[in-house]
Amino acid sequence: MVERITNELLVLGAGVVGLTCAWRAAQQGRRVTVLDPAPTSGASWVAGGMLAPVTEAWPGKEELLELGVEAVGRWPAFAAELTAAAGRPAGLRTDGTVVAATGSGDRAELDAVAAHLARLGRPVERLSGRELRRLEPGLGPDVRGGLSVPDDLAVDNRALLAALRIAAERAGVTFVETAAQAVLDDGTRIVGVRCAAGERAASTVLVAAGAHSGGLHPALHGLVRPVKGEILRLALRPGAFPAPSRTVRALVDGRPVYLVPRPDGLVLGATQSEVGFDTTVTVGGVRDLLRDAERILPGIAEYALVETAAGLRPGSPDNLPLIGALGPEGLLVATGHHRNGMLLAPVTADAVAALLRGDPVPEAVRPADPARPRLSCRSTPQRSEAAIDRWVTVPAAPRR
Amino acid sequence: MVERITNELLVLGAGVVGLTCAWRAAQQGRRVTVLDPAPTSGASWVAGGMLAPVTEAWPGKEELLELGVEAVGRWPAFAAELTAAAGRPAGLRTDGTVVAATGSGDRAELDAVAAHLARLGRPVERLSGRELRRLEPGLGPDVRGGLSVPDDLAVDNRALLAALRIAAERAGVTFVETAAQAVLDDGTRIVGVRCAAGERAASTVLVAAGAHSGGLHPALHGLVRPVKGEILRLALRPGAFPAPSRTVRALVDGRPVYLVPRPDGLVLGATQSEVGFDTTVTVGGVRDLLRDAERILPGIAEYALVETAAGLRPGSPDNLPLIGALGPEGLLVATGHHRNGMLLAPVTADAVAALLRGDPVPEAVRPADPARPRLSCRSTPQRSEAAIDRWVTVPAAPRR
Repeated sequence: MVERITNELLVLGAGVVGLTCAWRAAQQGRRVTVLDPAPTSGASWVAGGMLAPVTEAWPGKEELLELGVEAVGRWPAFAAELTAAAGRPAGLRTDGTVVAATGSGDRAELDAVAAHLARLGRPVERLSGRELRRLEPGLGPDVRGGLSVPDDLAVDNRALLAALRIAAERAGVTFVETAAQAVLDDGTRIVGVRCAAGERAASTVLVAAGAHSGGLHPALHGLVRPVKGEILRLALRPGAFPAPSRTVRALVDGRPVYLVPRPDGLVLGATQSEVGFDTTVTVGGVRDLLRDAERILPGIAEYALVETAAGLRPGSPDNLPLIGALGPEGLLVATGHHRNGMLLAPVTADAVAALLRGDPVPEAVRPADPARPRLSCRSTPQRSEAAIDRWVTVPAAPRR
Repeated sequence: MVERITNELLVLGAGVVGLTCAWRAAQQGRRVTVLDPAPTSGASWVAGGMLAPVTEAWPGKEELLELGVEAVGRWPAFAAELTAAAGRPAGLRTDGTVVAATGSGDRAELDAVAAHLARLGRPVERLSGRELRRLEPGLGPDVRGGLSVPDDLAVDNRALLAALRIAAERAGVTFVETAAQAVLDDGTRIVGVRCAAGERAASTVLVAAGAHSGGLHPALHGLVRPVKGEILRLALRPGAFPAPSRTVRALVDGRPVYLVPRPDGLVLGATQSEVGFDTTVTVGGVRDLLRDAERILPGIAEYALVETAAGLRPGSPDNLPLIGALGPEGLLVATGHHRNGMLLAPVTADAVAALLRGDPVPEAVRPADPARPRLSCRSTPQRSEAAIDRWVTVPAAPRR
């Protein structure tokens, strides 16, 4: 059915997923228009930018791991192509990732992750606190052990968004700053999109509106929920201890925290709570992030706190993204990427480009089919599978 | 000599002190021009707004206490007059102040303050933790005792600045958005002010440029130093515990913190460090403020953190302000108010208005004469008198 789609494509959402899909579709000759009331804002603007499938691994999430490993493998070539197309850096950092644990419970958790990865044939290197500090001298004395995962990378999310916007425009993508309110169909096929300013006719629509995707078409209802995350941006000051060169992820008394390097400092994240469409930065969230991050990198006390922000990740019922055709003919979706939008954007765009051409999607993307049976029995929006997402997810209630 | 001053007045600085002086001078018929590159910004914009001389009392600071008590007594009439003149609220809050202590050292410190005040004939009410919680139910279980000081008030600094600006304009004050670089004299008299755009002739100049005052005329060199303070602005969210109605000052393991109510939340402050003209908000400063404030009012964890900011208080060598004539004829100064600019602005403006008329200044302002002998032997800029400013001042080094 997808083969019959016309040559035009309307993309709803100019975050990392929508932009990458739009760029790729324009590259293969589509006429692409992107609708977004505020392009390159939203969750992509607030993201930490980890490209880190291995350090996200947990038993029960094997399909996400496979997809993520496939995705991170595509990143260096993707970044090189984007840098050339945009004439500015895509923001990829290839210094790798370390994971740090403090208390004995945290170390046991990392041991479980390492054992799980070894069983899957993806061994990771376990390091003592001293060995970790040899890699990253800024790690504090509370760090007692951890992992080195050089293949888990990172990207400067704002550099990436700027490069994607330019590359898309150069490839002929048109941007319209308006909010889509609903995708319209005639019972069989997509016919258009309703916006604040009126309706736009369209026969092919890609919904890539992040946490807002669930409200745009009945086929998506209950499939995407907002998962709030707070981040802090810190800037290095003269005399302060230099930022790490690697991404530092950590468990501090069971709470996850990450510090992702940037040219002028680092991004510190991220809380996780399910409180609807609320992007308030809370006192409790900032307090937790600062306390836990200082346990890991004490030198950040002398950094400048230059920004606090919250974003809404698009969560899916099983935490796998939703990539493919769904519902009436002409409706494509690329959403539900949760914490992995940056990581999965290139492979998602390749899958969407394949669908537009009528080709099969990459093997690793198939479990993300939005029409997968385990999603079809839903009645009410489901919450994250906390039991299988333990070491990177905090409970649904706000952190105390 | 002041009597010979012409009818024009150039005021350098549109913070709370400069604005109040300008308004008062215009009220008595002066032609007043205020120079400031960014009116109503600076330390006044960042202030907590405590009008709290009694809870700032400490042995050795009796003159400042007398001046402050005189000043707070003038505030209700001043606020009423300003509200009428501006046609909008001056922002005064008359709910009073409580002081909370946590550890035994903090309680001993408050006992010393209370004993000192009793010796001066200004007894304050000592309360148990339970009695304090009866007044302010949001106080947490770590609060073990404290003081009630109903006569220490507070003002919404931004409401005040807006009202002062309007009242001054209505009284005929002219504002020029430019930075004064130097006050010029001919060896005997003031002749003008050098600005970025050129020179302005003037025979009477009032320096009210806060922490920047020290660089504007040689007579002020070494008399004013920047004392950095970081504050956080918190907004009440639905479902969170209501903000206190009184100002809450506290000592937490020796560190001072205050929480000043605002219509939509509260202002939380303030760190104190002497690091030159640096207004960076640091991770360590924010972490300290949040940690200590939550010990006192645990409910703020659910508040929104809506702003972080740092300002530079103008410190003087003896922590008394500098109010009066200094150096060449026609030079008046109203600066060095340190933490007390809001409190002392009305009495400062009355003193400046008296000087402009050729009248004596109010009795309580006389110790603030900028030509006082104990300042004349200075060689290098002095630091705060930490030994006599213990319970409201942290060491000169950044707080850890």
